[in-house]
Amino acid sequence: MGGQNGYVVAVVGATGAVGQKMIQTLEQRNFPAHTLIPLASKRSAGKTVSYKGEEVTIQEAKPEAFEGVDIALFSAGGAVSRQLAREAVKRGAVVIDNTSAFRMDPDVPLVVPEVNEEDLADHNGMIANPNCSTIQMVAALEPIRKTFGLKRVIVSTYQAVSGAGTQAVEELKQQTRAFLDGKELNPEILPVKSDQKHYPIAFNALPQIDVFQENGYTFEEMKMINETKKIMHMPDLKVAATCVRLPFFTSHAESVYIEVEDDTATVEKLKNLLAAAEGIVLEDDPDTQTYPTPLSAEGKRDVFVGRIRQDLDEKKGFHFWVVSDNLLKGAAWNSVQIAERLVKNNWLTRSVV
Amino acid sequence: MGGQNGYVVAVVGATGAVGQKMIQTLEQRNFPAHTLIPLASKRSAGKTVSYKGEEVTIQEAKPEAFEGVDIALFSAGGAVSRQLAREAVKRGAVVIDNTSAFRMDPDVPLVVPEVNEEDLADHNGMIANPNCSTIQMVAALEPIRKTFGLKRVIVSTYQAVSGAGTQAVEELKQQTRAFLDGKELNPEILPVKSDQKHYPIAFNALPQIDVFQENGYTFEEMKMINETKKIMHMPDLKVAATCVRLPFFTSHAESVYIEVEDDTATVEKLKNLLAAAEGIVLEDDPDTQTYPTPLSAEGKRDVFVGRIRQDLDEKKGFHFWVVSDNLLKGAAWNSVQIAERLVKNNWLTRSVV
Repeated sequence: MGGQNGYVVAVVGATGAVGQKMIQTLEQRNFPAHTLIPLASKRSAGKTVSYKGEEVTIQEAKPEAFEGVDIALFSAGGAVSRQLAREAVKRGAVVIDNTSAFRMDPDVPLVVPEVNEEDLADHNGMIANPNCSTIQMVAALEPIRKTFGLKRVIVSTYQAVSGAGTQAVEELKQQTRAFLDGKELNPEILPVKSDQKHYPIAFNALPQIDVFQENGYTFEEMKMINETKKIMHMPDLKVAATCVRLPFFTSHAESVYIEVEDDTATVEKLKNLLAAAEGIVLEDDPDTQTYPTPLSAEGKRDVFVGRIRQDLDEKKGFHFWVVSDNLLKGAAWNSVQIAERLVKNNWLTRSVV
Repeated sequence: MGGQNGYVVAVVGATGAVGQKMIQTLEQRNFPAHTLIPLASKRSAGKTVSYKGEEVTIQEAKPEAFEGVDIALFSAGGAVSRQLAREAVKRGAVVIDNTSAFRMDPDVPLVVPEVNEEDLADHNGMIANPNCSTIQMVAALEPIRKTFGLKRVIVSTYQAVSGAGTQAVEELKQQTRAFLDGKELNPEILPVKSDQKHYPIAFNALPQIDVFQENGYTFEEMKMINETKKIMHMPDLKVAATCVRLPFFTSHAESVYIEVEDDTATVEKLKNLLAAAEGIVLEDDPDTQTYPTPLSAEGKRDVFVGRIRQDLDEKKGFHFWVVSDNLLKGAAWNSVQIAERLVKNNWLTRSVV
């Protein structure tokens, strides 16, 4: 398996928004994949995707398709992952799953390389890629936690429609034109395609991402809460989240309030820490109106942080604004980055079931 | 002055987004104004506005225009208010000013009728209408505070472009069409027309509303912080705000975290309190995906609250989502409502300088 000639890499969900970004990112990063196997539903089998100048034919995602695969990147929805990810592992592949199917499984590492790369050493063939809105937040929290500790996080999100898939992107485009032309909007996809009611997203804000849970929180909010604790190895960290879908296409933004342990923390120190942190770009200067926005972060792999300021009442309290491309660091890039770290640390071969 | 035949009411800024809503609201509420005097810049003088089926000619806003005026509603920007509001008071008018010019003046009541109507009794001819994003938040906070006390507020806002005036509304429309047509966006107005840099608002989120202050907060954020303390008579209340401009036209939404004093508070009790509160409409049922949105609140005078849930770590902590039409309760309606209360309580005649 693998070796000097590289690896066989499968991408499950190759026609989706994230799957396409995965293939592009493998290419841009020059990932050592001597063979790319794009997989999708039966419906898409036979179509092609472009990879390193060649057209590669999409195959149907089924158990046998994973024979000989070294690394399988899954991003075709939780149902597909539940059905096929274990089959891929059984056949010797290391699965990096971008759905919520296995994230909270105690035997599955949930990894953001800048935060908990070492958890990759303990995989049993299955690794989970966290939720998009969680990834960018923990990437910004970790450098702060390492130096000043972390007691509490309260986040309100500003999330792009591409997180709900290509149909949601189309719905925003169509509704926007309809709205400007004075026509009816006819929502069918957002906030959640499978849920009972749909609301317009064009020129609107929907305080629901994913379905509601028993406790009144949405599943997206619970993902942010539970995944943050797991990734940071802080089961007792206080985390609260409110997740809101907004009418823009790419990049999630987050208004984050934190309380640190150490009362020597200052805005200047936080800025210095974040400016030096791996994967983070500090864009923060009120004097020159410098701060990240969804449009400015689009197409970039970094996590951008700005608007850092101390709470006016709590000495250990700080507010900031985090933005990142939800399809890249939030999904495709973090998955490929996990694959890169597995290769670099020689942890791929430990995947024995 | 006034009496059974009603009052002479001037609206300063009659051609602006809020001024127009003020005139419409006076008409809809059948406010006892026997004469409406629309005032605006010299440039707009001579145009007409429609009021109760008649076309009324706009006059130039200058000191003499306030002779004989009983109530003057100002919404033409801080500079105009600083120049003319005292002139109006001098001539016997009671001024209800919708700019930030006098809000923090200790001699000027800052009023949201559902919260601190009684402060109107002490005016000296000048009353300030709070900032739009502040009004809807304190309207939702007050019923909770009355019953359970209030220790802390952390808010992240989702604000419509109409809060930045009609030019910002046009900019969003133009940029949206340009974006969908693959053209350049050329921002010139937002986030702050008078500031150095401008960023696209179409399909974007801008974490800057109004100019930055020395402490790294924007003026909008400081308005929410300081005005909330003043309106609620709680100078020591902990309040933090992050204000974000978004690509929708009307209504501000807010993700609010609060901590109350009394640990007997529950989600059910909060819902009951808010459902019964004046000016509040509870729209909160996860089972039926019921929550307010900017589009659903547009054109309505109420403040809508939903997504109320208890914090998962803090027993006294609660999260909720508040939405209201920023041009109505956030501006025009709150101003006209103040005028109604002055009349109803017979407090108009106390305006002696």
